[in-house]
Amino acid sequence: MNYKIYVVGNKIQKFYTDRIKEYVKRLSRYCKPSLVPVKNEEDLLKKLSPKSYKILIASYGAQLSSEELASKINHLGVSGKSDIAIIIGSTKANYDECLAISPMEMDLGLTATILFEQIYRAYRIINNEPYHK
Amino acid sequence: MNYKIYVVGNKIQKFYTDRIKEYVKRLSRYCKPSLVPVKNEEDLLKKLSPKSYKILIASYGAQLSSEELASKINHLGVSGKSDIAIIIGSTKANYDECLAISPMEMDLGLTATILFEQIYRAYRIINNEPYHK
Repeated sequence: MNYKIYVVGNKIQKFYTDRIKEYVKRLSRYCKPSLVPVKNEEDLLKKLSPKSYKILIASYGAQLSSEELASKINHLGVSGKSDIAIIIGSTKANYDECLAISPMEMDLGLTATILFEQIYRAYRIINNEPYHK
Repeated sequence: MNYKIYVVGNKIQKFYTDRIKEYVKRLSRYCKPSLVPVKNEEDLLKKLSPKSYKILIASYGAQLSSEELASKINHLGVSGKSDIAIIIGSTKANYDECLAISPMEMDLGLTATILFEQIYRAYRIINNEPYHK
């Protein structure tokens, strides 16, 4: 599966991109994730593939536990959805599903870092492998 | 107000402690926060001040928005609770209140980073100041 994590508007601090790089490396065994910073909503629209399954992250979205996220990822894979777009920081994007990490408002770079960590955690759960910090 | 954020058991990666240092610096205008890694539950018990107001962070706790956290912090300050202990990664500690960031299970260092960010965000809200990444 391919994951593109779009972050709208904010320049992501090196601190977070470094951490995300580490998760991208670890995840390469399981899937192809990438971070896609976009300038604004217009830029997002241009870059979003219409074929992708779009998940918007917003504080009002549905909340999942790590196990539920793992089972969602498993299900998406089984049902042939291989291009997943995860969108952070958009108020205008169309989406198939809206999920929340927390009702707290968070820095977008931090949100992206949490998502990469959760996708990594999900694959460890799916594969019955222990989680590594 | 003094905040001690206790993290039980896990060695926190430098990546997170660097980011936390940055928030400690920014927060010094408003309060005195510190990160206290402890070895285990026993060590936590030894270090917890009995006077402190204890908030346990756990995925089953009550969820707050950033604004609600700000108003809680404001209220605690007004009601004279000046020593706040925030406890991450404990299953045994006594607490006055249990809060959740997310139903997702998260790395404890990442959880601590989110909390420092939220406390910083809370003080910016309380003081009507814009949030800075």
